[in-house]
Amino acid sequence: MEKELVFGHQNPDTDAIGTAIAYSYLQNKLGYNTEAVALGEPNDETAFALKKFGFEAPRVIKTAANEVEKVMLVDHNEPQQSVSDIDKVTVTHVVDHHRIMNFNTSMPLFYLAEPVGCTSTIMFGLYKHFKVEIPQNIAGIMLSAIISDTLLLKSPTTTERDKKAVQELAEIANVDYEKYGLEELKAGTNIASKSEEE
Amino acid sequence: MEKELVFGHQNPDTDAIGTAIAYSYLQNKLGYNTEAVALGEPNDETAFALKKFGFEAPRVIKTAANEVEKVMLVDHNEPQQSVSDIDKVTVTHVVDHHRIMNFNTSMPLFYLAEPVGCTSTIMFGLYKHFKVEIPQNIAGIMLSAIISDTLLLKSPTTTERDKKAVQELAEIANVDYEKYGLEELKAGTNIASKSEEE
Ligand SMILES: [Mn+2]
Ligand SMILES: [Mn+2]
Ligand SMILES: [Mn+2]
Ligand SMILES: [Mn+2]
Repeated sequence: MEKELVFGHQNPDTDAIGTAIAYSYLQNKLGYNTEAVALGEPNDETAFALKKFGFEAPRVIKTAANEVEKVMLVDHNEPQQSVSDIDKVTVTHVVDHHRIMNFNTSMPLFYLAEPVGCTSTIMFGLYKHFKVEIPQNIAGIMLSAIISDTLLLKSPTTTERDKKAVQELAEIANVDYEKYGLEELKAGTNIASKSEEE
Repeated sequence: MEKELVFGHQNPDTDAIGTAIAYSYLQNKLGYNTEAVALGEPNDETAFALKKFGFEAPRVIKTAANEVEKVMLVDHNEPQQSVSDIDKVTVTHVVDHHRIMNFNTSMPLFYLAEPVGCTSTIMFGLYKHFKVEIPQNIAGIMLSAIISDTLLLKSPTTTERDKKAVQELAEIANVDYEKYGLEELKAGTNIASKSEEE
């Protein structure tokens, strides 16, 4: 099957990178041929989470049309947040938790948006829907994404769905999510202090 | 809970009206307070299907903001195909099988699009997802929608998902879908010949 790239938004956060990894794994299980890539290097928090669960940072792309005709978006839909040549490729799938803005297609596609705290919470539902088992490392990176977006389930955007996903993913990943979550968020604050010092 | 209206596109077809009825029923089962309405009178085909399964034609609205603040869209997303004052209400849910065009929101929402032959095929999946039993008459109107959009599973937009939905819905509705489908489509062609004569 023709290869497709899966990626989150520019200046990627842990949801953009973690959910791209999780969606690529799921879609490949379902018969697609995808690669999770990123539109930038991981920040310190994301790098911490990737390392914790044994992932390399996804390959960074500047453009997509030079290598594929089709792409799948996670954690964003607005073209100005996407790959620079998004208008030159076909978006076949979107999984996102943001408002929809300036996202136009010429063909029908798969688009799932839900008003929850993190795209990985929606992804958790998709794994359940398709009855695909979540490997321990994928559970860990999805857990990290939800911890990041919801500030350890404390942000006003947090829903019951996010809480349930965190509990189940923490079990699969075999981590104490409150302890790990504080470590992860702390790894992210390092960059802020460092930037201020620089 | 605050009431929301559920409707399909202007110049409604059987999918626009049938899936609005089916989505309103599902959402009410899930705890929402909704009413299925329509942006126009049913055509001859839709009127035939509504009568066959014991439904009244949904109430026709010209505007929405005079009665509700929130709406749910089925079988369309483009504002120019929607209620005239769509910009004055908040769209909380969309279930559709068309391209996405000029659909912008200020807030996150539920949006499910799939590239299948009919919105009722997606709706069938939502009933399964939420484990809500499909009543016989709702199955009948969803079946009628898929027959209409896929021309009895013969259109090039027909997918395996549409075929499977038709088989299961026909069983619940207790009709021979090939026999009923021809009657339904024939009821629709009456209007074409009549219009030509007029
Ligand atoms: Mn993000
Ligand atoms: Mn996010
Ligand atoms: Mn339609
Ligand atoms: Mn339709």
